[in-house]
Amino acid sequence: MSATLAADAEFERRRLAGEQILFLATGEIGLPVLPELREHLVAASGRNAYGPVAGSADVRLAAAGYWSRRGLPTDPADVVCGPGSKPLLFALMLAVGGDVVVPVPTWVSYAAQASLGGLRSIPVRTRPGEGGVPDPAELRSAVRQARAAGGDPRSVVVTLPDNPTGTIAKPETVRELAEVARELDLVIISDEIYCDLAFVPADQAVSPAHYAPERTIVTTGLTKSLAVGGWRLGVARLPTEALRTRLIGIASQIWSSTAAPVQAAAAYALAEPPEVVRYVAAARRLHERVVRRVADVFSTAGAELAPVQATCYLYPDFEPLRERLDVAGSNELTDLLSNRYGVALLPGTAFGEDPRALRIRAATSRLYGETDAERTAALAAPDPLTLPWISAAVDRLTEVLTELTKESNVHRHLRS
Amino acid sequence: MSATLAADAEFERRRLAGEQILFLATGEIGLPVLPELREHLVAASGRNAYGPVAGSADVRLAAAGYWSRRGLPTDPADVVCGPGSKPLLFALMLAVGGDVVVPVPTWVSYAAQASLGGLRSIPVRTRPGEGGVPDPAELRSAVRQARAAGGDPRSVVVTLPDNPTGTIAKPETVRELAEVARELDLVIISDEIYCDLAFVPADQAVSPAHYAPERTIVTTGLTKSLAVGGWRLGVARLPTEALRTRLIGIASQIWSSTAAPVQAAAAYALAEPPEVVRYVAAARRLHERVVRRVADVFSTAGAELAPVQATCYLYPDFEPLRERLDVAGSNELTDLLSNRYGVALLPGTAFGEDPRALRIRAATSRLYGETDAERTAALAAPDPLTLPWISAAVDRLTEVLTELTKESNVHRHLRS
Repeated sequence: MSATLAADAEFERRRLAGEQILFLATGEIGLPVLPELREHLVAASGRNAYGPVAGSADVRLAAAGYWSRRGLPTDPADVVCGPGSKPLLFALMLAVGGDVVVPVPTWVSYAAQASLGGLRSIPVRTRPGEGGVPDPAELRSAVRQARAAGGDPRSVVVTLPDNPTGTIAKPETVRELAEVARELDLVIISDEIYCDLAFVPADQAVSPAHYAPERTIVTTGLTKSLAVGGWRLGVARLPTEALRTRLIGIASQIWSSTAAPVQAAAAYALAEPPEVVRYVAAARRLHERVVRRVADVFSTAGAELAPVQATCYLYPDFEPLRERLDVAGSNELTDLLSNRYGVALLPGTAFGEDPRALRIRAATSRLYGETDAERTAALAAPDPLTLPWISAAVDRLTEVLTELTKESNVHRHLRS
Repeated sequence: MSATLAADAEFERRRLAGEQILFLATGEIGLPVLPELREHLVAASGRNAYGPVAGSADVRLAAAGYWSRRGLPTDPADVVCGPGSKPLLFALMLAVGGDVVVPVPTWVSYAAQASLGGLRSIPVRTRPGEGGVPDPAELRSAVRQARAAGGDPRSVVVTLPDNPTGTIAKPETVRELAEVARELDLVIISDEIYCDLAFVPADQAVSPAHYAPERTIVTTGLTKSLAVGGWRLGVARLPTEALRTRLIGIASQIWSSTAAPVQAAAAYALAEPPEVVRYVAAARRLHERVVRRVADVFSTAGAELAPVQATCYLYPDFEPLRERLDVAGSNELTDLLSNRYGVALLPGTAFGEDPRALRIRAATSRLYGETDAERTAALAAPDPLTLPWISAAVDRLTEVLTELTKESNVHRHLRS
């Protein structure tokens, strides 16, 4: 079971049982749908035909424009739409075949998807502060070693910007990765679902498709920037006709097509009219303010973390506090925070880390409000940190981390 | 690539090129959406959260009621919703694992799905006039033989009522199949997406879940009875907690959840309010009238086929006409019909048949009209066969089959 979706289910259970939970475990974007986006779904509610497996001409044209505006010239024929970028990533792994290199730390589903498809995954660590992209030098040696041992690595997955760390690999690192991929004849599967959520233009991720266009697949979706995860739509940009044909064949056998009314709404959104651009900008500012404030709270408590550059995630490491904490690893740490303090986070183990490491992931995307009114206010607020429900969450987290890391824990620990 | 979805794409290409095609190749239901169903999608257009992987409480409750009213008592916790019954069937094959027995003839995707999941499929013929259910005696010997040879058959797929034949296995045959499955410890995956499209109550399919409730998974969806294939929603009814847990785990890694507005509409539809029942009844009558008329046309031309009892499909066998036809098998026959006469059908090879057999599948579901107005008229017509666009299609088919099978072909054939 996906660690994030399991955490969502557990939260819902505890919430219904009347518990007060500070929920920082998963990255569902708790914001209301842009009204114009809803209107496009509504207008397309009579569309009941399957349509093309690859997606309607409209949605492919809009996605091609979306990527072309980002410096990746795209023909609508290069685009395949699917019911989320998650199923697209799964089908892409099947389409490429062979072993899959995944970054560490890594999004919860890449390795699980490879395994469901009968493929082996090869973990390769990222550089500090540059999550999502396996260190190119380590990638080279891991792939050579796997091949020498009879393995068949054919692709490498990257996440730009990164989940879980909220960081963005430097263009130079992406370029090196692209060169290694070319040298070793690897397909790059670049998951860029957070590409519109980089806080400052200078940090903007550069897609490996710029450096190795002949071998890079790019995926994205509406889930993160437009908060419609529950509508299920993603798009992939394919570099070759062979890969596209294979992906469409697999899609035709697994899911047929993507919900037609949602495709119509996506065609509108991916064309990026002004109100969509404004919504994404407002959401990005909101994430930035809140995630940076929460990062400060973790830093102040003594955890280590790289500056967050994008997304609504942060990935603090409690290693400097190990002596003060009565825990063996990240599972025990998140259990303690959940059971004793009602703070829900995900342990580093969910992201492929060694169980002894004290890394955990926090997501701020569910702090924006409980009701549509609160969430709309958060999106519009000049300073969302002054909203009572957000400041209360920050205060509570501060209090919990202070309590968790105070010296007396060490004494209790030593006594026991 | 799915044979049906490939045929849809080819049809669309030829239609846009201005060709007049009599399209009988695939079973997309060409009818407008029930207005009340649209309204429920519209009302839920603000739902943007993922929600539970298994589906909302509402849709699971409605599906449980739907099955309970059909004599299969169901707890909402036994239900898993997915983006179509197709992805559910794929995930179920992965969840059960091992080799999969499929009927012959068979729906185009079962074996392809097994293969994508790295599983082997074992074809077993159905009894004449009882498509969709592998002959129980042959099932027993095929499974024993596979196991003796080191194979690992763990499940058998059945289609009730059947696609491609439009027939329904007798309750006695289903009971025998259930007994063999129990004897051999096989899971039964019962695809019942056409279960509301049996023309007369006496023919109604009996689910294997009646005879082997402990080992039968049932799937269905909105695609066929409510004509919303393009909305992508299916539901599965699981017999054990172990299977349900495995299915939900796989679903969480492949598709996360089903489009939330579509789930809300499905919750309404599966509760079967009077207008939904009326719509399904009208669609069923329309299919019955047209499919039986088209079956007569094939019979009159000399093809053999079992009486059609359900769905919008028929599966004529041109074997009695082999001498009059200048073709080696079903691929050549459908190519001839498509290229010379502009009639699109699918060859038996798409359904797992021997290429030399002259079986082909026709679907009538795209004859109901080109526009929403025509389609609405077809749904409401006391006798749809009198509508000009439907009677023209029947006349054209009659003409083509007369031309195809006339004696002079033999002479031309003998001369060449």
